Amino acid sequence: MSDGKKSDGKIRRPRAETPKGFRDYFGAEVTERRAMLEAITAVYHRYGFDPLETSAVETVEALGKFLPDVDRPNEGVFGWQDGEDADWLALRYDLTAPLARVAAQFRNDLPSPYRRYAFGPVWRNEKPGPGRFRQFYQCDADTVGTASVAADAEICAMLSDALEVVGIPRGDYVVKVNNRKVLNGVMEVAGVLDPTDPERFANERGIVLRAIDKIDRLGPEGVRALLGEGRKDESGDFTKGAGLSAEQAEVVMGFTTAKRESGTATIARLRELVGTSVIGAEGVEELETIAALLDAQGYGPDRILIDPGVVRGLGYYTGPVYEAELTFEILDEKGRKRQFGSVAGGGRYDDLVKRFTGQSVPATGVSIGVDRLLAALHAKGRISGDTTGPVVVTVMDRDRMADYMGMVADLRNAGIRAEVYLGNPKNFGNQLKYADKRQSPIAVIQGGNEAEKGTVILKDLILGAQIAQNATLEEWKDRPAQVEIPRADLVAEVQKMLAQDSLAR
Amino acid sequence: MSDGKKSDGKIRRPRAETPKGFRDYFGAEVTERRAMLEAITAVYHRYGFDPLETSAVETVEALGKFLPDVDRPNEGVFGWQDGEDADWLALRYDLTAPLARVAAQFRNDLPSPYRRYAFGPVWRNEKPGPGRFRQFYQCDADTVGTASVAADAEICAMLSDALEVVGIPRGDYVVKVNNRKVLNGVMEVAGVLDPTDPERFANERGIVLRAIDKIDRLGPEGVRALLGEGRKDESGDFTKGAGLSAEQAEVVMGFTTAKRESGTATIARLRELVGTSVIGAEGVEELETIAALLDAQGYGPDRILIDPGVVRGLGYYTGPVYEAELTFEILDEKGRKRQFGSVAGGGRYDDLVKRFTGQSVPATGVSIGVDRLLAALHAKGRISGDTTGPVVVTVMDRDRMADYMGMVADLRNAGIRAEVYLGNPKNFGNQLKYADKRQSPIAVIQGGNEAEKGTVILKDLILGAQIAQNATLEEWKDRPAQVEIPRADLVAEVQKMLAQDSLAR
Repeated sequence: MSDGKKSDGKIRRPRAETPKGFRDYFGAEVTERRAMLEAITAVYHRYGFDPLETSAVETVEALGKFLPDVDRPNEGVFGWQDGEDADWLALRYDLTAPLARVAAQFRNDLPSPYRRYAFGPVWRNEKPGPGRFRQFYQCDADTVGTASVAADAEICAMLSDALEVVGIPRGDYVVKVNNRKVLNGVMEVAGVLDPTDPERFANERGIVLRAIDKIDRLGPEGVRALLGEGRKDESGDFTKGAGLSAEQAEVVMGFTTAKRESGTATIARLRELVGTSVIGAEGVEELETIAALLDAQGYGPDRILIDPGVVRGLGYYTGPVYEAELTFEILDEKGRKRQFGSVAGGGRYDDLVKRFTGQSVPATGVSIGVDRLLAALHAKGRISGDTTGPVVVTVMDRDRMADYMGMVADLRNAGIRAEVYLGNPKNFGNQLKYADKRQSPIAVIQGGNEAEKGTVILKDLILGAQIAQNATLEEWKDRPAQVEIPRADLVAEVQKMLAQDSLAR
Repeated sequence: MSDGKKSDGKIRRPRAETPKGFRDYFGAEVTERRAMLEAITAVYHRYGFDPLETSAVETVEALGKFLPDVDRPNEGVFGWQDGEDADWLALRYDLTAPLARVAAQFRNDLPSPYRRYAFGPVWRNEKPGPGRFRQFYQCDADTVGTASVAADAEICAMLSDALEVVGIPRGDYVVKVNNRKVLNGVMEVAGVLDPTDPERFANERGIVLRAIDKIDRLGPEGVRALLGEGRKDESGDFTKGAGLSAEQAEVVMGFTTAKRESGTATIARLRELVGTSVIGAEGVEELETIAALLDAQGYGPDRILIDPGVVRGLGYYTGPVYEAELTFEILDEKGRKRQFGSVAGGGRYDDLVKRFTGQSVPATGVSIGVDRLLAALHAKGRISGDTTGPVVVTVMDRDRMADYMGMVADLRNAGIRAEVYLGNPKNFGNQLKYADKRQSPIAVIQGGNEAEKGTVILKDLILGAQIAQNATLEEWKDRPAQVEIPRADLVAEVQKMLAQDSLAR
């Protein structure tokens, strides 16, 4: 152990801080997330999905260059070299890249199709901002090894069920479905996709994709600018556009506004837009099939609907894409009303496993932004937030610690959350302050007098707080906030008081 | 996306492999661990401990140089620099160092004492070996901010409860308690600790500590060699010893064999050994107090006992140390019987928070080796291992996918785990092979005939497997492995069949 002295003789102490962009989660923050993930994964389980937990660390080679929203490859991850001349390793930036690696590595052992779910932290080496952390949770479900769009439909239905089971009521969310092939068909019509040479115009199409994905933020004019020469943002920075002509841009913009009153009408409009494009027609048909399959399972447009506005920024999607949006309003940092927005998204990616094996392995899946969904539940008051602390046995006489520990042992054996105050017992006020900070429902007190009589005092801290606030004299008489009881009745009387407290709440 | 072509024009595919020393966890491996952690943390909760989840990444500065079993500082972690001239970051190697950082960072907000539990992966940049991975789970509980050994006693009791709740029966484990101060007293008697100059002989004491910690593996002669000039191991490598004289070594060895029939007798023997050492006497008294407190809570020597053989290798312990050992025998890789051994350990570390703040913050805590405890439960057959797969609705007619998805929707809405086969449906045998691989209990079949009649066929795959193995003709008549039922009765009939299957198991 270093003594921490610098050369000038002063003691240099380490800073007690998380690294920039990282944070800790305390108490209810941990249990609320855990409860939400349990509810979601119970739905995934019912749909036949099996859990998978990959390691946090992957080779950079296996991770690939698919980090969303990062234009330059290999940026955005935390990486290091595993010794001289050894592999470069990195923390996973999502749960999809590790799944693709697993699907390739264990392709002879896994069932096919392979339905798996996973949740856990992922890491992004990005500039942190308010509410934007470099470690955050995702919760994914994917089906690997089937080209059938029934798999996509199933994931949309499952996402809808998952949102409802955690407490987002029907009507407060919508799962929007679109298809990249339709967009490709439109691009073909606009002349920026050449079916005989898929690589041609790839750069332009990338810009178009990212532009459409930002339509909520930039508005139609902003997107139009990015489709053309480019756009100067508020800070004056210029983003180069795709260089489309006004006519070409018009075709693409038509796609973003293709949504109609009903799914059938939207599909009909999309069929017009893709014209004679083969890939476009394929996409429209897939959307039609998805809509029919969802209908057969009872998922109508109040839950899941076709919406050409959804494209998802990720480059690797190849077919259906989907996004769950929460439609209720919240107040933003500036007090303005806005829709809560997206909490989950995904789509079909038929080429991620092929990277490893050379063989096409079609796959589709969704990722829930766990922290955003938790924030939504908080905003809707859907988190019960039972933060009741332990019963606190106070210490009146340090030499009788064994007696106090006997009391908590009795309480704990009866399943009651309880503890002895383990700080310095000299100042009794500090013990009650501690109980208060822990949100303790009851303090147990036994001084020398009580010990002689074989009794203990129970102080109902919840009732006490209520009396201090607003209780009338009558209530106080009926139910005193403090009772002296035989030590032998400790467990029974604490149970009684806890039951009364939970009724009173 | 790179096209993966090398300069020679060949396609270079990434290897689908985890980095060396890392692994993936599938299905039951994930759910079994989750269930075990839930059971353990429910005990921690009852004891008044609150959850904390720190980030996986810490500054190297905050982590400090406390990695166990690593003699050279700053080795053994995965670290990288967070950009030029920026902090060095690293993955946490345990859950204690981050807790010390949190206790210092949030000292004004946290209750004091602060009881917290945590679980999650930790990372060690060590040479991987069989069963030895570079990412593994720990589950810790610590009390920060109390010097009272009641906190140590409480953690030992809680550890005992946790082991029993996950399925280690009383008698198959023992929590051993010792005290570093007693060992320091013995060292003082042996002349390798000078109370007026604590830094003197620090190196020798470190060697003594690590030597005693390895007594199970090296035997008394091996330890004696390390206390003296040093020891050559089987591979011929020489480890330098502490350089104690034969008389000094004898005093230390006496400590390792101080255990007697009863706790009282062991404590009396330790009192003899520490002679007039003040720190030694303090340690003996602490052990006496711990034994008395545990006794008051009903934790006798069948669960928790004083054992001077336990020292724990970590340099930072300052008082009581404890270890949970599983006492039942298993067969090792070579088929020899051996005790299962240690699954958890901990102790008091009064200086970890002081590193940050300069103020002494006494703390004590335990860490459970999650993977080892899981292995123990497997060895004892204590894991139920319900790996029942989903009901599989097969696809006889691709055009009627909507009907099949309607069937799974009905089953799922009734809470039954179910899925449609989403692979290529052409080969019906493949569908049944898939159901088999998924350990599916029932296959649902509806061909054109059945569809016309409004029926479905249920194939009881569990009964089918039993019949194939050993059922008699009578059983077969009573309960056919295949029934045709009205489509409208699907849910009720599947429920009936599942109930029969679970009875038959």
